[in-house]
Amino acid sequence: MSDRVFNFSAGPSVMPESVLKKAGSEILNYGGSGMSVMEMSHRSAAFTDIFNNVKATFKSLMNVPDSHEVLFLQGGATAQFASIPMNLMKSGSADYAVTGHFSKKAAVEAEKYGSVHIACDTSAENHSVIPAQSALSLTDISDYFYYCANNTIYGTQWQYVPSSAAPLVCDMSSEILSKPVDVEKYGLIYAGVQKNMAPAGLTVVIIDKSLAGHEMPITPEIFSYKEMISKDSMLNTPPCWCIYMLGLTCDWVREMGGLSAMEELSIERSRLIYDVLDESRFYTAHAQADSRSRMNVTFRTPSDALDAEFVKGAAALGLVNLKGHKKTGGLRASLYNAMPIEGAVKLSEYMKKFEVEHV
Amino acid sequence: MSDRVFNFSAGPSVMPESVLKKAGSEILNYGGSGMSVMEMSHRSAAFTDIFNNVKATFKSLMNVPDSHEVLFLQGGATAQFASIPMNLMKSGSADYAVTGHFSKKAAVEAEKYGSVHIACDTSAENHSVIPAQSALSLTDISDYFYYCANNTIYGTQWQYVPSSAAPLVCDMSSEILSKPVDVEKYGLIYAGVQKNMAPAGLTVVIIDKSLAGHEMPITPEIFSYKEMISKDSMLNTPPCWCIYMLGLTCDWVREMGGLSAMEELSIERSRLIYDVLDESRFYTAHAQADSRSRMNVTFRTPSDALDAEFVKGAAALGLVNLKGHKKTGGLRASLYNAMPIEGAVKLSEYMKKFEVEHV
Repeated sequence: MSDRVFNFSAGPSVMPESVLKKAGSEILNYGGSGMSVMEMSHRSAAFTDIFNNVKATFKSLMNVPDSHEVLFLQGGATAQFASIPMNLMKSGSADYAVTGHFSKKAAVEAEKYGSVHIACDTSAENHSVIPAQSALSLTDISDYFYYCANNTIYGTQWQYVPSSAAPLVCDMSSEILSKPVDVEKYGLIYAGVQKNMAPAGLTVVIIDKSLAGHEMPITPEIFSYKEMISKDSMLNTPPCWCIYMLGLTCDWVREMGGLSAMEELSIERSRLIYDVLDESRFYTAHAQADSRSRMNVTFRTPSDALDAEFVKGAAALGLVNLKGHKKTGGLRASLYNAMPIEGAVKLSEYMKKFEVEHV
Repeated sequence: MSDRVFNFSAGPSVMPESVLKKAGSEILNYGGSGMSVMEMSHRSAAFTDIFNNVKATFKSLMNVPDSHEVLFLQGGATAQFASIPMNLMKSGSADYAVTGHFSKKAAVEAEKYGSVHIACDTSAENHSVIPAQSALSLTDISDYFYYCANNTIYGTQWQYVPSSAAPLVCDMSSEILSKPVDVEKYGLIYAGVQKNMAPAGLTVVIIDKSLAGHEMPITPEIFSYKEMISKDSMLNTPPCWCIYMLGLTCDWVREMGGLSAMEELSIERSRLIYDVLDESRFYTAHAQADSRSRMNVTFRTPSDALDAEFVKGAAALGLVNLKGHKKTGGLRASLYNAMPIEGAVKLSEYMKKFEVEHV
């Protein structure tokens, strides 16, 4: 790892070192083109090749069926919060599961465009839990059911794919590429790339093509899925560098064994940390056991002062960005695909040592 | 230049080689942080420093007054086509100068949100000319007057700042940082960065703060200038890598002598090509003499076949991306800040040689 740290940031976050090395090695001259990918026209033959390969590799990894299209957009989840109702709320209402900060923001934004029914709201538990299917209140007039698969701030993750008569719309920003997904079950999946895929600035959307084409008249052209599908994401200049970096990450995931291998690693990494929490009377986990995220582990020591000391001591060992989000306080270890197992091992050892020294 | 080419692409386009080298040198470990800028949380101390420095350097280069705010957004011009009317069309109408493809697109998009008055339309001349101030039809009920300072496709450029009672709104995507600008004259300036500033995926907006806060209720939060001003562009995760690259470019512009130096180089570069056109009876310029762009020189040989031969012969010499846009046909040489004078010299020599051989 040379002088690199183990970066537990919730996003933007760690990328595979080999991916960064590859990008660095061709930053002045990509594939004999005599220029950087950053300098290429998005309509050039060289970039068209990159684009088509990235899309094909991503589709193959995610096993995207022909019924669905993959789009490369901008604006992250915040843009999707508006795009989704503008395009999909064709009869004027939708069901939203509020299980954290970002699903709440999505629901609030959707209210600008139609009637929002809250299918569940875990605010009272400070979003430490994901409700069971039986606890979801779903309407029969909904144009779609929206949920966020993994709550980065609170460290919770849906352990099942919810069932809904209306098309499923899912924010997978912080779990995408970490396990196999049955894309056919979804009307729309989206993910900002800055956690498990690429540098911030690109949003991947996987949409059932039959859902496109019903956008409201006030929908900005750049938010129209129909337009983007018809232009293969090239309505305007896309974020070419992020797309290229996504391609390098997808190649790396494939070389590592694909999404099943990513899932195994994800289980191993998160178990290392949860095992320490389960065996400890010093640390407290934020998420309830049946709702735990493999991506973001949220916990705390007995005091704010010890939390701060924990973060400081970890940083001295090259384990950085372990401070929790202000909404939960405490500590958070984000364990995305690119976090080496070694990083999780070192963190678990540090946690045990810290407990012994401070209990 | 080693094995790098001279890249005359209209955008995304050539970047300074020293900027790419610097980015490559710290791609694995920025400033001793142990991580790439691509891996940094946008709210980390390290990235906050980068962000603040980039903003300060950009403001200093552009001499942005305190009345105006600089925003770093996503979505390029296409997002601004909708954002501008959604935020600024508070009494419901605006004047648009249509001098090319992108100003036409802006006017069409604005019609979704209010009444658009066409102040001029140069379609009949295939956008080979920029109208004089006296030829502009401006209304007295307009919320703003919109124009595009440089028309990348057609190779025309406004040689003056138009005068309007309503606030001036300007798309400077393909000329920003190429000459000093009197920002105070403008209500809003925006630029996609992918021509003169950084890799695609970032839009810089300079807005008179007094114009913000009047957005329509259906405005997506991510399109609200007021929200973005209040969050210092951090409403959501910004395109961090593009912002970092913009900073490296701004440092380079400053080291080169700032915008006056950029303007001198721009005059020199474009004169090299226009001089060949003016002395030739072989080449035809697309833009009228008083409307010529220093950024994009559009011209043609006597035939499509010779145009194609020109492009092929140039590429063999490492002068690439000289094919014109399909709307004009012929040839186009884009001469942004990062194009070395040597590139323009080599192109001018090739043009003269090609003429002698094919006249």
